[in-house]
Amino acid sequence: MAAPRLSGAFAPAVTPFTPGLDVDFDAYAAHCLWLQRHGAGLAIFGTNSEANSLSLAERMMLLDRLSGRGIDFSRTLPGTGGCALPDTVALSRHALLHGCAGVLVLPPFFYKGVSDDGLFAYYSELIERVADANLRLFLYHIPAFSGVPISLGLIERLARRYPDQIAGVKDSNGDWANIEAMLRNFPHLAIFPASESFLTRAMPLGAAGCISATINVNPAAISALCANWAAPGAAAAQQQVDRIRRIFQKYPMIAALKWAIGHARGQQQWQVQRPPLSPLSAQQQASLLAELAAAGFAMAALEQP
Amino acid sequence: MAAPRLSGAFAPAVTPFTPGLDVDFDAYAAHCLWLQRHGAGLAIFGTNSEANSLSLAERMMLLDRLSGRGIDFSRTLPGTGGCALPDTVALSRHALLHGCAGVLVLPPFFYKGVSDDGLFAYYSELIERVADANLRLFLYHIPAFSGVPISLGLIERLARRYPDQIAGVKDSNGDWANIEAMLRNFPHLAIFPASESFLTRAMPLGAAGCISATINVNPAAISALCANWAAPGAAAAQQQVDRIRRIFQKYPMIAALKWAIGHARGQQQWQVQRPPLSPLSAQQQASLLAELAAAGFAMAALEQP
Repeated sequence: MAAPRLSGAFAPAVTPFTPGLDVDFDAYAAHCLWLQRHGAGLAIFGTNSEANSLSLAERMMLLDRLSGRGIDFSRTLPGTGGCALPDTVALSRHALLHGCAGVLVLPPFFYKGVSDDGLFAYYSELIERVADANLRLFLYHIPAFSGVPISLGLIERLARRYPDQIAGVKDSNGDWANIEAMLRNFPHLAIFPASESFLTRAMPLGAAGCISATINVNPAAISALCANWAAPGAAAAQQQVDRIRRIFQKYPMIAALKWAIGHARGQQQWQVQRPPLSPLSAQQQASLLAELAAAGFAMAALEQP
Repeated sequence: MAAPRLSGAFAPAVTPFTPGLDVDFDAYAAHCLWLQRHGAGLAIFGTNSEANSLSLAERMMLLDRLSGRGIDFSRTLPGTGGCALPDTVALSRHALLHGCAGVLVLPPFFYKGVSDDGLFAYYSELIERVADANLRLFLYHIPAFSGVPISLGLIERLARRYPDQIAGVKDSNGDWANIEAMLRNFPHLAIFPASESFLTRAMPLGAAGCISATINVNPAAISALCANWAAPGAAAAQQQVDRIRRIFQKYPMIAALKWAIGHARGQQQWQVQRPPLSPLSAQQQASLLAELAAAGFAMAALEQP
């Protein structure tokens, strides 16, 4: 690959909305900058960003506006995958115009049971249409939401055909055997498990880092573990980030992340989700707060300077 | 409801593409008119139309261009449901501007395991934002693709809150018990099973007709059965349409429909599908042709005058 391999902790930045369900851009940009200051790259427009609840125009507008706010696009990896090839092409080109480090591309996710040939054709058309030597494409394996797995065979075919464009994979399936197989089979690709809980197992095998929901609330510790996985104390650091992650996993993840951020910052706009997602109930809020306190999680760390 | 209840056979018109993967509009419009001449209404932009592989702009452009071609929009029910509320609002408003009979709206289908409260909020927002007394909304239950079922409880809540807007349901799940429950629970709604195979069972219980893939290749017989389900000979007519449907069901449905149409019309553009879908293999083509011939299916009936 021409460009240096992307690595570290990338946050699928969560999205605050006004009561009228528009993106609250100031709170959003401030959150992105806060993540960046705490060591995280930005995997904006991800699953946890409610990106698929945003229109094409909204996603482009947000990236345009972020470019005036001091975001480091060389450490930004926007999600650009929709169901329709023209949309994915348009979003990917737009991300490249902004100098983003790469694009994280869901498979087209309406039709189910599609063949690897069909997915190969989709990603090939995307690469040919974007037609930019700077394209670095990260495949997004998240069958629980997409219903369309990215198989090892598909990765191999695409990486062989487009060695300069296929840059990596995000594996959200939570299945260690698959992550390990990717790491062993594709040492030249940047493999990002979607959870920090794999870091001390995956980094020694060459993982690039992680792209994980909970980086939204724990960026400094997770970024540090990505860098220091071989240092003394890594096992204890792993346990501590795992403890926090397990708490959030007991709740609807996006709502829980947004509630915690909004609570710490005193910002109501984090409690709004675009339908069909819903905010936490009052009972869930109280229970999450209590669990985080019991685990020694410093809510104050979520405050912005 | 203010408007007369929609009824009959509605075809999710399949979409021909140029070798460059653009919609071949002339062949598309001609197919829509052919369906209309053979008694079918048009459920354009459905699952079988590869609508989710088209961009928002493409769907609007197609509807705009169809309006110059003699399409009866009072018998046209476009699919307008995407993952993002702003897209669904825009497509639904656009369909109303053209005087379409209603809109068939998928639930937002990226997030899975969403609550009925979340789906109620989504459809409510849609109705409030479209803000048009002429809106007739048909809910689309197709969990095999959407992963998001439309429950009986959700239908009831929405129909009670928006009695003038919630006009019906398309049930693509192929589960007779659910279709029967909808027919019994919601006699005021237009219930469309997604297969003609239910017609002689569903029509006596008050079904509105059907919205079925195979109407693309068998519009006259299925439309006639919708009208004449109580007449002598209906059982035999049911058997004959079932026989044809079962053949197509053995193949990837969209590819098989398009192959048959293209073969009969000598039009190559029907063999093109947007990725991730793939055309039939040569072996599948030969086998489908042989099975249709053995069943007495008149390929010549697919020819256009």
